[in-house]
Amino acid sequence: MYKTHYCGTLRITDIGKSVLLVGWIHKNRNLGSISFIDLRDYYGIVQLTFYKNNPLKEKIIKLGREFIIQIKGQVVERKFKNLNNPTGEIEVLVSEIKILNKSRVPPFLIEDKTDGNDELRMKYRYLDIRRNIIKNKLIFRHEITLIIRKFMSNKGFIEIETPMLIKSTSEGARDFVVPSRINIGKFYSLPQSPQIFKQLLMVGGIDKYFQIVKCFRDEDLRADRQPEFTQIDCEMSFIEPNNIQNIIEELICYIIKNKCGLNISTPFLKISYINAIKMYGSDKPDLRFDIRYCELNNFLKNSGISFFSKKEELIISILIPKYAIYSEIDKLIKYIKEYNKNINYVIWIKYLNNGTFQYPLDIFDKINLKKMVNSINANPGDLLIIITVKSKNIKNIMERLRLKIAIFLKFKFKRFAPLWIVDFPLFELDEKSKKLNFLHHPFTSPKDEDIKYLKNSPKKVFAKSYDLIINGVEIGGGSIRIHKRKLQETVLKCIGLSKDEIYTQFGFLLEALEYGAPPHGGIAIGLDRLISTITGNDNIRDFIAFPKNNSGRDTMINSPSVLSLEQLKELNLKFNNRGKI
Amino acid sequence: MYKTHYCGTLRITDIGKSVLLVGWIHKNRNLGSISFIDLRDYYGIVQLTFYKNNPLKEKIIKLGREFIIQIKGQVVERKFKNLNNPTGEIEVLVSEIKILNKSRVPPFLIEDKTDGNDELRMKYRYLDIRRNIIKNKLIFRHEITLIIRKFMSNKGFIEIETPMLIKSTSEGARDFVVPSRINIGKFYSLPQSPQIFKQLLMVGGIDKYFQIVKCFRDEDLRADRQPEFTQIDCEMSFIEPNNIQNIIEELICYIIKNKCGLNISTPFLKISYINAIKMYGSDKPDLRFDIRYCELNNFLKNSGISFFSKKEELIISILIPKYAIYSEIDKLIKYIKEYNKNINYVIWIKYLNNGTFQYPLDIFDKINLKKMVNSINANPGDLLIIITVKSKNIKNIMERLRLKIAIFLKFKFKRFAPLWIVDFPLFELDEKSKKLNFLHHPFTSPKDEDIKYLKNSPKKVFAKSYDLIINGVEIGGGSIRIHKRKLQETVLKCIGLSKDEIYTQFGFLLEALEYGAPPHGGIAIGLDRLISTITGNDNIRDFIAFPKNNSGRDTMINSPSVLSLEQLKELNLKFNNRGKI
Repeated sequence: MYKTHYCGTLRITDIGKSVLLVGWIHKNRNLGSISFIDLRDYYGIVQLTFYKNNPLKEKIIKLGREFIIQIKGQVVERKFKNLNNPTGEIEVLVSEIKILNKSRVPPFLIEDKTDGNDELRMKYRYLDIRRNIIKNKLIFRHEITLIIRKFMSNKGFIEIETPMLIKSTSEGARDFVVPSRINIGKFYSLPQSPQIFKQLLMVGGIDKYFQIVKCFRDEDLRADRQPEFTQIDCEMSFIEPNNIQNIIEELICYIIKNKCGLNISTPFLKISYINAIKMYGSDKPDLRFDIRYCELNNFLKNSGISFFSKKEELIISILIPKYAIYSEIDKLIKYIKEYNKNINYVIWIKYLNNGTFQYPLDIFDKINLKKMVNSINANPGDLLIIITVKSKNIKNIMERLRLKIAIFLKFKFKRFAPLWIVDFPLFELDEKSKKLNFLHHPFTSPKDEDIKYLKNSPKKVFAKSYDLIINGVEIGGGSIRIHKRKLQETVLKCIGLSKDEIYTQFGFLLEALEYGAPPHGGIAIGLDRLISTITGNDNIRDFIAFPKNNSGRDTMINSPSVLSLEQLKELNLKFNNRGKI
Repeated sequence: MYKTHYCGTLRITDIGKSVLLVGWIHKNRNLGSISFIDLRDYYGIVQLTFYKNNPLKEKIIKLGREFIIQIKGQVVERKFKNLNNPTGEIEVLVSEIKILNKSRVPPFLIEDKTDGNDELRMKYRYLDIRRNIIKNKLIFRHEITLIIRKFMSNKGFIEIETPMLIKSTSEGARDFVVPSRINIGKFYSLPQSPQIFKQLLMVGGIDKYFQIVKCFRDEDLRADRQPEFTQIDCEMSFIEPNNIQNIIEELICYIIKNKCGLNISTPFLKISYINAIKMYGSDKPDLRFDIRYCELNNFLKNSGISFFSKKEELIISILIPKYAIYSEIDKLIKYIKEYNKNINYVIWIKYLNNGTFQYPLDIFDKINLKKMVNSINANPGDLLIIITVKSKNIKNIMERLRLKIAIFLKFKFKRFAPLWIVDFPLFELDEKSKKLNFLHHPFTSPKDEDIKYLKNSPKKVFAKSYDLIINGVEIGGGSIRIHKRKLQETVLKCIGLSKDEIYTQFGFLLEALEYGAPPHGGIAIGLDRLISTITGNDNIRDFIAFPKNNSGRDTMINSPSVLSLEQLKELNLKFNNRGKI
């Protein structure tokens, strides 16, 4: 037997008990007449105290940080209690000590505030996980997934494992592929999502499916992307978007209630893709603060005001509610001007509480400002900043500007601002290839009333799709799927696939749609992002036990790595133009 | 809105209600003056009845099997109730009908007893899943995983996701590998188990870890093997084998109690590897019935009985308790003789209730049978069959013979016979290469008292390992792991790895063991096998939504498949000696 108690759970009620403890030496302090070891285990830290007369006092001097020891001792009450520490009312007097394993000096401090940089902590991730701050995030993730599984099961969803070794499609530029040894020359691929399989489960008569599942994408990485990531994947038969949206709203509220003690009101706001772009310059607007945009070209382009007359520029008002009385407008104007070189002209209008307007000089004297502010739903007391922007890259500029202003003005952010973006276009134009691409994926159903445009004006087609946004982060996306073969074929043709390509890649799905496929739809939620958003910590890596770096490398195990010649030979593979292998 | 109720949940309490239903046409019967449609959804089947005067009666004739329809109707009481069917007391009179999707004629019957063969059902797995018998197995699997997660979490285990894209090792002849697009020339591999990562979690101070996780093995397949399979993976720090064994026993009992209503007694039997081979000819003995072996070479080889004197033969008694009075011994003898051509001589001894012996002719007259039966713990009333077997391939012969005899004798099997096999050898000799291999894996700890043999007599080294067997199926295996660098290096050298190989492949683990790695151990349980064993159904494929066939192929999606030239080019890969690609 290694232990009778955990270090971190000893309390004043344990006084007098003989205990056998194991743990890591967190600190070892020799104060001359008295020595202390802070012994740490999964549950916390307990103080081992060695008084002058303890014969072990000399022995422990050579015990280093992170050594693992087993001790036999007695729990006693502390003279000087530390009530900030759950074990701070007691200490343990040690009668026997045994070293279970030694430790080299760890390369960084095992403390919440560590001196280890990101790279070092990744290489020694197993030491990083010993830190409470990381350990607690893994526990948090565990608890969230438990909550999700409980919730979804109670709603009648069943968790079904879909395969990991699947088939690559033309959509698969970002597929990881897996050569088969038994089927030489052929490859599996790893799923970017279980999309097709969950649809086939619906065809298979499963009413409500969910899965918390690993997915894979071989793409250039960004801070919030990992080559493998975890998805909460859901699908239901015979539903409209609001059926699945309601369940997901309830789930999000349930999690936030449970883990943050906050009540979020439902239903969540729904904004169309087009309006989101107009009002927030983004399809994932951050609504923790209230700043919105409105295009004023109609009002101001031909107003005769020279600043507004440039051809390639858009005139946009930034509406900041209740800021008409803001005293440092000049600083704000300067900040916005300097934010991006494509912002040319910046000017303010105060819509005062008494219904009148204030602005610099006489610029807006000839404009019917009453009409203008009514058209953009501004209220007395609001501040309007009007800017002119070169229309190139406008989305990139405007998307972040709102947040920048909110931070500049030291807005008090709402803790959670969830919403749905709905009615996305079905296609987007790929700027490079000038070809149409799916904005979501090939199985998204167009709106019934837009099906007629598929053949000749596909850009006019909107989709039965919806994204869940929380605090400006795209948490998940879903749609109603196509459930009829003919429509699926038509939609696939729109992106330029030939009949042959369609059949080779999606033949099995098309066939499945001919055997009584029910109307169905669903959603996929990024677990890593959901968790980091809920905790307000924007580094998703912290919530992943063994994450990869921005090059997709695990620096701890040094992966990916080269294969042996034997392994390559067995797979009948070789590399082009590589002398080395 | 698609529906107000589910078909399968309508009951007599719903009589009088107007309902909107959707579902698949399970059967469509026209009896002349009356027509019936059995409408099926996830929850069951309801009868739609069309009387003579219903104008829809003509319309429904053309509705084929598996069409999806939406109907509006009224629930009424049936005249002729079918109490075998949960909806059998009611029927629905239909006022409106709408076809939501058509269906081609399904290639096999969507019934528990189907006419579809295995191959056809796999190709159209989405139709197969519509059958209750398959659907219910997926639901069962879902419920079991919920139970396991609840149980493990309550025991203080936290579920942590380990990475799927890891690193190939020399152990990795059966690794699936994954070329990286971003790191050209380098490969990830898919985990055969999360072994190293769960060990690193222990080094990271996680006290109790578990995960229900996909694992991968690229090997020739058998009926109970899939290239991807699911494992219940556990690991604990500061434990002895019995700590984890107790928890797993409790888990198994909890599952069986919950899903089968049966109480299993604990602790489970523990048998050493050596004794298991001796007594049952197997390291995964089926103890649902009581037949055991005992070698009698010592007693009989030099007894002067000519049958027993052949050099290369073993003399084994098959002990069948309480069968001394069996009346058809001759048939049994014949059956055993014919079972395998390596079984030469077969003879019986009845150990009668009065303590005397009976046997054919005078064969055993000169033998001290009392001493013999005492040495093998036989009791009065038992039957002994003594056989001589050529010692080549003896394990293969004896492993299945017990089961064959039990079936021949129409034994009543216990429903569940769980046990632990413990104390495996650390190494086994590979017959081909004459090299030592790990019987379990390289991280298994040798027994403390055997460490001294590692250098010179590694075959004498036993391991702190344990396999969980239920009903003759290896459900899981585990061990205490090595937690010190030096021992790990020594053990790796035993299988002939050079220092370089050891460091390249396991360097990160060896380093981790130097930073205060705690003593730890764990187990991995095959979820697919556990479920199939609990249900008494030996086809694990039935419990997998989209299984692969014996060639590792998914015939539904036709995977694995060839990659496009573009994809191969992007990965910088090509095939040896393949004109086609």
